[in-house]
Amino acid sequence: MLVVMQAHATEEQVRGVCQKIESLGYRPHPMPGATRTAIGITGNQGEVEQGTLDDMPGVQEVIRVSKPYKLVSRDVKEENTVIRFSGTAATFGGRNLAIVAGPCAIESREQAFAVAEAVARAGAQFFRGGAYKPRTSPYSFQGMGEAGLKIMAEIRDRFGMKIITEAIDNESLDLVEKYADVIQIGARNMQNFSLLKRAGRAKKPVMLKRGMSATLEEFFMAAEYIMSEGNYNVVLCERGVRTFADHTRNTLDLSIVPAVQRLSHLPIVVDPSHGTGKRNKVTPLSRASVAVGADGLIVEVHNEPDKALSDGMQSLYPEQFEELMTQVRQIAAVVGREILAIGTEAVEPVRAR
Amino acid sequence: MLVVMQAHATEEQVRGVCQKIESLGYRPHPMPGATRTAIGITGNQGEVEQGTLDDMPGVQEVIRVSKPYKLVSRDVKEENTVIRFSGTAATFGGRNLAIVAGPCAIESREQAFAVAEAVARAGAQFFRGGAYKPRTSPYSFQGMGEAGLKIMAEIRDRFGMKIITEAIDNESLDLVEKYADVIQIGARNMQNFSLLKRAGRAKKPVMLKRGMSATLEEFFMAAEYIMSEGNYNVVLCERGVRTFADHTRNTLDLSIVPAVQRLSHLPIVVDPSHGTGKRNKVTPLSRASVAVGADGLIVEVHNEPDKALSDGMQSLYPEQFEELMTQVRQIAAVVGREILAIGTEAVEPVRAR
Amino acid sequence: MLVVMQAHATEEQVRGVCQKIESLGYRPHPMPGATRTAIGITGNQGEVEQGTLDDMPGVQEVIRVSKPYKLVSRDVKEENTVIRFSGTAATFGGRNLAIVAGPCAIESREQAFAVAEAVARAGAQFFRGGAYKPRTSPYSFQGMGEAGLKIMAEIRDRFGMKIITEAIDNESLDLVEKYADVIQIGARNMQNFSLLKRAGRAKKPVMLKRGMSATLEEFFMAAEYIMSEGNYNVVLCERGVRTFADHTRNTLDLSIVPAVQRLSHLPIVVDPSHGTGKRNKVTPLSRASVAVGADGLIVEVHNEPDKALSDGMQSLYPEQFEELMTQVRQIAAVVGREILAIGTEAVEPVRAR
Amino acid sequence: MLVVMQAHATEEQVRGVCQKIESLGYRPHPMPGATRTAIGITGNQGEVEQGTLDDMPGVQEVIRVSKPYKLVSRDVKEENTVIRFSGTAATFGGRNLAIVAGPCAIESREQAFAVAEAVARAGAQFFRGGAYKPRTSPYSFQGMGEAGLKIMAEIRDRFGMKIITEAIDNESLDLVEKYADVIQIGARNMQNFSLLKRAGRAKKPVMLKRGMSATLEEFFMAAEYIMSEGNYNVVLCERGVRTFADHTRNTLDLSIVPAVQRLSHLPIVVDPSHGTGKRNKVTPLSRASVAVGADGLIVEVHNEPDKALSDGMQSLYPEQFEELMTQVRQIAAVVGREILAIGTEAVEPVRAR
Repeated sequence: MLVVMQAHATEEQVRGVCQKIESLGYRPHPMPGATRTAIGITGNQGEVEQGTLDDMPGVQEVIRVSKPYKLVSRDVKEENTVIRFSGTAATFGGRNLAIVAGPCAIESREQAFAVAEAVARAGAQFFRGGAYKPRTSPYSFQGMGEAGLKIMAEIRDRFGMKIITEAIDNESLDLVEKYADVIQIGARNMQNFSLLKRAGRAKKPVMLKRGMSATLEEFFMAAEYIMSEGNYNVVLCERGVRTFADHTRNTLDLSIVPAVQRLSHLPIVVDPSHGTGKRNKVTPLSRASVAVGADGLIVEVHNEPDKALSDGMQSLYPEQFEELMTQVRQIAAVVGREILAIGTEAVEPVRAR
Repeated sequence: MLVVMQAHATEEQVRGVCQKIESLGYRPHPMPGATRTAIGITGNQGEVEQGTLDDMPGVQEVIRVSKPYKLVSRDVKEENTVIRFSGTAATFGGRNLAIVAGPCAIESREQAFAVAEAVARAGAQFFRGGAYKPRTSPYSFQGMGEAGLKIMAEIRDRFGMKIITEAIDNESLDLVEKYADVIQIGARNMQNFSLLKRAGRAKKPVMLKRGMSATLEEFFMAAEYIMSEGNYNVVLCERGVRTFADHTRNTLDLSIVPAVQRLSHLPIVVDPSHGTGKRNKVTPLSRASVAVGADGLIVEVHNEPDKALSDGMQSLYPEQFEELMTQVRQIAAVVGREILAIGTEAVEPVRAR
Repeated sequence: MLVVMQAHATEEQVRGVCQKIESLGYRPHPMPGATRTAIGITGNQGEVEQGTLDDMPGVQEVIRVSKPYKLVSRDVKEENTVIRFSGTAATFGGRNLAIVAGPCAIESREQAFAVAEAVARAGAQFFRGGAYKPRTSPYSFQGMGEAGLKIMAEIRDRFGMKIITEAIDNESLDLVEKYADVIQIGARNMQNFSLLKRAGRAKKPVMLKRGMSATLEEFFMAAEYIMSEGNYNVVLCERGVRTFADHTRNTLDLSIVPAVQRLSHLPIVVDPSHGTGKRNKVTPLSRASVAVGADGLIVEVHNEPDKALSDGMQSLYPEQFEELMTQVRQIAAVVGREILAIGTEAVEPVRAR
Repeated sequence: MLVVMQAHATEEQVRGVCQKIESLGYRPHPMPGATRTAIGITGNQGEVEQGTLDDMPGVQEVIRVSKPYKLVSRDVKEENTVIRFSGTAATFGGRNLAIVAGPCAIESREQAFAVAEAVARAGAQFFRGGAYKPRTSPYSFQGMGEAGLKIMAEIRDRFGMKIITEAIDNESLDLVEKYADVIQIGARNMQNFSLLKRAGRAKKPVMLKRGMSATLEEFFMAAEYIMSEGNYNVVLCERGVRTFADHTRNTLDLSIVPAVQRLSHLPIVVDPSHGTGKRNKVTPLSRASVAVGADGLIVEVHNEPDKALSDGMQSLYPEQFEELMTQVRQIAAVVGREILAIGTEAVEPVRAR
């Protein structure tokens, strides 16, 4: 359910409607827009009785949202969500194309710094690297844990890039929230609803990867779990789905980018590294991702891919990433996007959460 | 890696090999068999150096296991794993066919008792019911939590059935371990490795459901996560996979039953309720599951399916479940299985863990 | 569209309605049932105008069929279709379970006779064998052609089994129609509509295999193509679909058996050989197929599987097929079916087409 | 098997090797390259005995090709295949991006001319339109047949565009070969091997669409069927595959473009209309297809999509197609491609077949 406020409604009127909603046992989600505020209503008890809110001061319309996802929907918020970070104009959403790069896993200080220097020089604004790795085998390298997070925090200080890293349970999420700028929820945890709720209570944006066989609606509902707890800064990420096709590790489904943008206000980026699983396919699919309209890329880069402890096959050499950036900048220009340097000062004030 | 002890090796010799393995920084997993003991070796540091264990007293052979799963494999343990419960001859694995039945979710004491009475009368040995429900939507009924667990514990006392229920995170697993007899890990959490490790430290058997797009190897590796922490009582459960087919909610992959039985010693049961998502397909697919050789069934039954808070469409009416049991008993006889009453006293001593 | 005649309608009245339908530019398909006749109406020009047929003598009701398939549907014909063959009580559909067995391809007279003798002795009523093989590679053995068909005709004379073999184009269909008793259309040709139409004009029953990624509706529509040309003797065959799963060659979708039986009057059999692609899975999945309610099995058997020119990996040894028959007979008894010997004289008159 | 001739080998030497191959009962496929000729050897009898051809005059090397596809492979022909047409510089393969556009089906002279005029003006070099439609339902519009082909031939005369249309069986292929410039084999017929062989004997290039669940290897093997009969002018076409995803009609697998280009010399184009099934996704996915490196696009355009007899939902309005062309030209420039006008005279002589 959705309350659309009048264009000239006062803050007090918005507050009044929110209090009424709470008093009925539901949860209000005020979403300020360019011209008016909408208030999403969520809760387990079904719908608010018709007529209860329609006549309150400042209310223009009460809309029953028939889709199962509400806060994710463009019905609730028409303008694109743009996620901003202090000290930089680089964003998720908006005109800027977000470029996230780094190794699959943080393996050592030396390795992490070597990759960070290379991707920063090539223009990456966000540094990725796994400290907690969800590995298929219990006997595989599981990540450096907090030590890895500390190395990433050092990298932020040194190179200015913002840090994105994966949380795999409540304990690691506490630490990721402390050290990183964006919390990543991996594909295998897309329906770990307990973790999604915890991420919804975090004070940092969340990058949510699509599950291996998730439909668009399930993907949206996973984001809805996060938003329903109050964290509206969610970035979606397509990373390939599982099909019968065997020429790539996964089948990258680029059609989901315009599908998401049509129905939701949330930004969506593409991961061509996991999406293909093969180094020689990452650059062509990165070009395609930008051409289709994605809001950014997340790419695996390693200084010595052949010695990587995980996902070496799909990691680019630093010089390949540089070449990728050159090509992607040109495609970006065609689709009306640009890649802002991380050092650029934000011209607009950072939105308070 | 796997150490096969001689048939006449003493307990002391087994202990000696285990201590040696630990001193090398690995973890030993002794698996006593009918004629001899095998010791699985796991650990992140790669393989134990060749020649280190071969000449120890009581060692017959040291085998390098090339498959990524070790403890799950028949190479490590040739005989079928049979999971037993105190006070009953009903088992998972062995000649007995395990019959698990109950509602999707515990909704109230009345509903739970009504279903429990019906399924107990029809011959179910295990009662299922969700207290923590992983729902696609944050606005759907999420389960009664501990109150639901308490109702199930009462049902065990009253009807004698053993209790199976799902844990969705570490917190709920603590409680499920306390109240239930078997801990269920759902399909969406099959690769929630953090939860799998916690389940591996639990003192109760675990029923692990196959993920929606999990390959056989990924399914085995998820079980390996549990076993690598020391809990060897794992029951696998096929519940349908995601395909393009739209005449059922999922596509039940019965061929995985003989595939599991060929490669692993773990029992495998089938869930035709989630596997088809349609009430009218549950009985035929239950017959097929037993015919293919499954070690048991897990079936959703509700006293008033049309009023169920979840999965009503796939829940059987009590009288349909009774008819299912009649048919399944006859198929069981053809494949050399039987369904033991839960009241039957165990003739063999319950295996200490 | 469907005209339901009154129970006591005369043949002349049925003929009258059919003539009226033809005069309107459509095609009538009279389907005599136990108590009344229904007349399916097909044609490209959309629907017959409402009111045109309602008042004709003998007409009880005119029903608009909203499903895209008409002649396939139980709406048009309530009773199961039973396909009979002269000189035997063995059928497709009905109480008898149809058992089709033989090699993937006819390789030589010696090989074919060796397999035929073995499967006949074990109780197969139908002999399969490919004379025209649709092979993935143009450089693989493509079948013996007409020479293979002649060998199969000899086998019918010698062992009494009816012959089923695949046609891959109009030319081979002409010859298959001449020599065989049932024309098989393979999975790769399920949507070769030109071939389906030709099969619809054949005077022999057609076994139609499900395409590798065909939905139930597409499967029905393929059968509708055959029936719309006047050949109502169609047997459907589930042979596994393509999914991500890699422990079998295809994923056998047994849930389609009850789904077909609910919506259609056509018989459906299962091919566990292609459905699994692995010899050791054929017998368990055959048991499951009969248990789920299939109307028959089609199984690959070879006297020397390791020397087979195609599909050796999934072909049973003759003694394995014998064992399969023993197990399947017992399951059949539980589900109210039996396997009639091919020699059995038909007690009912063979239905004229 | 593959014979690589020396750089200075004479035509007579090439002929000599071909004759030797024939005399051994195999089929030679000479493939002239920029610097040397390679001769592919195909045949059902296995491999030519080692040493038989190595010492013939002009032979540099005899290579055993281990992949199942031979003539399709870059091992046999290193340079890209470029398919040329008389009277124009527009090609499939090479620097030019091939743009194919037109309605799903030819419905009337008026409709076809209206669409043709619009797409020609926007820059399409090839006109597509179905005269024989493989429809899921026998009761749907099946195409105008030869009358439709004649309309397309008129369109070629009037607008200069080359004509591409689908053949669905041997009869329609005879007519398509007579009237059109490129013969299309549809996804449903990708493994109609009988039709592929007939197309291999045609004198016109063939556009082969990927089957709905075809792996890359199966796709290549289907092309190999055509080439093994002597027709080397094959264009591959990605048109989406069948998956569980339901936000589009099919899942467009753009990663197959670089995969094909790595392993094969054949051109590959993309069909974003069938690949998505939704009008609003055609333009973004067209941009992505060009960005990933495809050799062309095939797009459905209709003057009145809402009245289209088939596939109206995915057909662009003429003005949308114009906008698509504008965007695609810019992306093409970034990846080093251009779109040549159909009127442009070919600067190189058209390659004799």
